[in-house]
Amino acid sequence: MAAPKSSTPLLKDELDIVIPTIRNLDFLEMWRPFFQPYHLIIVQDGDPSKTIKVPDGFDYELYNRNDINKILGPKANCISFKDSACRCFGYMVSKKKYIFTIDDDCFVAKDPTGKEINALEQHIKNLLSPSTPFFFNTLYDPYRDGTDFVRGYPFSLREGVPTAVSHGLWLNIPDYDAPTQLVKPLERNTRFVDAVMTIPKGTLFPMCGMNLAFNRELIGPAMYFGLMGDGQPIGRYDDMWAGWCIKVICDHLGLGVKTGLPYIWHSKASNPFVNLKKEYKGIYWQEELIPFFQSVALPKDCTTVQKCYMELSKQVKAKLGKVDDYFNKLADAMVTWIEAWDELNPSGAAAGAPKVSAK
Amino acid sequence: MAAPKSSTPLLKDELDIVIPTIRNLDFLEMWRPFFQPYHLIIVQDGDPSKTIKVPDGFDYELYNRNDINKILGPKANCISFKDSACRCFGYMVSKKKYIFTIDDDCFVAKDPTGKEINALEQHIKNLLSPSTPFFFNTLYDPYRDGTDFVRGYPFSLREGVPTAVSHGLWLNIPDYDAPTQLVKPLERNTRFVDAVMTIPKGTLFPMCGMNLAFNRELIGPAMYFGLMGDGQPIGRYDDMWAGWCIKVICDHLGLGVKTGLPYIWHSKASNPFVNLKKEYKGIYWQEELIPFFQSVALPKDCTTVQKCYMELSKQVKAKLGKVDDYFNKLADAMVTWIEAWDELNPSGAAAGAPKVSAK
Repeated sequence: MAAPKSSTPLLKDELDIVIPTIRNLDFLEMWRPFFQPYHLIIVQDGDPSKTIKVPDGFDYELYNRNDINKILGPKANCISFKDSACRCFGYMVSKKKYIFTIDDDCFVAKDPTGKEINALEQHIKNLLSPSTPFFFNTLYDPYRDGTDFVRGYPFSLREGVPTAVSHGLWLNIPDYDAPTQLVKPLERNTRFVDAVMTIPKGTLFPMCGMNLAFNRELIGPAMYFGLMGDGQPIGRYDDMWAGWCIKVICDHLGLGVKTGLPYIWHSKASNPFVNLKKEYKGIYWQEELIPFFQSVALPKDCTTVQKCYMELSKQVKAKLGKVDDYFNKLADAMVTWIEAWDELNPSGAAAGAPKVSAK
Repeated sequence: MAAPKSSTPLLKDELDIVIPTIRNLDFLEMWRPFFQPYHLIIVQDGDPSKTIKVPDGFDYELYNRNDINKILGPKANCISFKDSACRCFGYMVSKKKYIFTIDDDCFVAKDPTGKEINALEQHIKNLLSPSTPFFFNTLYDPYRDGTDFVRGYPFSLREGVPTAVSHGLWLNIPDYDAPTQLVKPLERNTRFVDAVMTIPKGTLFPMCGMNLAFNRELIGPAMYFGLMGDGQPIGRYDDMWAGWCIKVICDHLGLGVKTGLPYIWHSKASNPFVNLKKEYKGIYWQEELIPFFQSVALPKDCTTVQKCYMELSKQVKAKLGKVDDYFNKLADAMVTWIEAWDELNPSGAAAGAPKVSAK
């Protein structure tokens, strides 16, 4: 069941690479052998008058804040500003089936043999092989070469379910919160864990947006990174929010979420003092958000990602509005996001429906 | 939170190594540097008149079928014969807090640097550090050196819960069922995955008894390996049965189950044709057993392992008795097992209660 090996890049015309940035994209030089065949969607954050330099030879489209405002009109208020949460605009304007998103401080990592890791290829393998959310396989992803389902794994579950999300990890600087950064400033992740696994049904996880791929047709409309940054009371919870939402929706719709390989090399830690300021309300709020998401029940008639997401926004308003008024705003933004998504993706309104390529 | 490093063996007087066997225990030679400080409980299966040779220098007690019959009287019928399920008798007669059980065709594995792996030491580290069943940590066991909880992990859950079970893995011959063995006779597990993780609450897994450790005080009375082998319609589901039972009870009592490291070297595959004969009813039945265990609900007044297990036996009889009469017998044997356990462990009748050592 492993993805076929070939010399032509996998899914070349079916995948966009989404990069949020505020600076020149020199980091792409290192990724050139792996990314150059693909189309890039660059979402420029911050001052739109600034020019972002993209190394020669890459095929890309770039959107700054003016573009976002022009394309979405009043609905642009659902897209965060001065926060990498703005990347989700790229998910919305893509016309491809798959998205890979990566931060511009992430470089090519090496495996223990010293070989450079083609992170994108591994994400594609993860997305093209099924997931196994209903029962844990102790030898990890049973669809990888050299492994399988172990004794005692029910045969009826061995077909697995479609994989919607592939969550990759980070060598060097781990993705820690501000308190942990402050307490362990020198900790580096040097452990290469050679595993991919499905996050079981009913289990939430902290989804990091640094090195992430997903199937837009299966889960795209739920990949909203929320309201963060400029004018908002929190930051650094954009990917977490999306992770909680996509997980409960994947669980409801019978889709899989994988985590593990591939690793990227995360080059530098962000400032823990700045991070603490962005995070502190999130650290407090998440103690109520996690139980909320752990107990969310979506009704049976929520058969598409959009319907699930609209229902979720209602429950956010009803149950989290009392935690802080911010969640009322966020619930409204979730609705705006879906409206904007459907406007830009008219043929893909039903999750899982085959999309007509706009090309 | 990692277990302390020292030159004296960890938990030397608090752990028994339980080995079921039908042959001379030459395999212990390779384990001598790691096992010799510990006490062994050898459960001799098959013909009790046969003499099992144990290499010099090991401290052990050995029980054959005659001993089991003498010690348990009529209750001995809950202990399987001609099947490695008999090992659970060793759990019952131990007076220690921790058990490590290993098969006699398992040898010392090497890590990727070529260093011999002290499997027992890793199990002890797993058991002495907490588990995190309520939320998934993407960098795996947060209590290992060099890692921690990642951004977005709720702080209220970072203390974890006590670890009851540590499930180790196998290099070389993977633990496959007969159909997979038949289809992939040459597959060997060569992938060393440098991870330990908690199996999330609500998720079942296929527990293999080949390389397994647990805290007897926390979960011992549920570690019953069922009725297998001589006179029974199935085999090779002893550890699976125990795994389903311990997992639902750990979930109910707020205890953790870890899987991953350590690896042992599993030397030879058992005969797939013989295995198929032992397994085929299990392969069929497990399609009904898994949904049963996935939906088991234990009432709040089940506050000890014994109470949980007695309740489980009732539900097995009520709901699985109609699958096959075998499950009525098994449910009765579960009750007998608990009665025998409490007889042999009078001071430890309540799970988690500190036990008076019989030494």
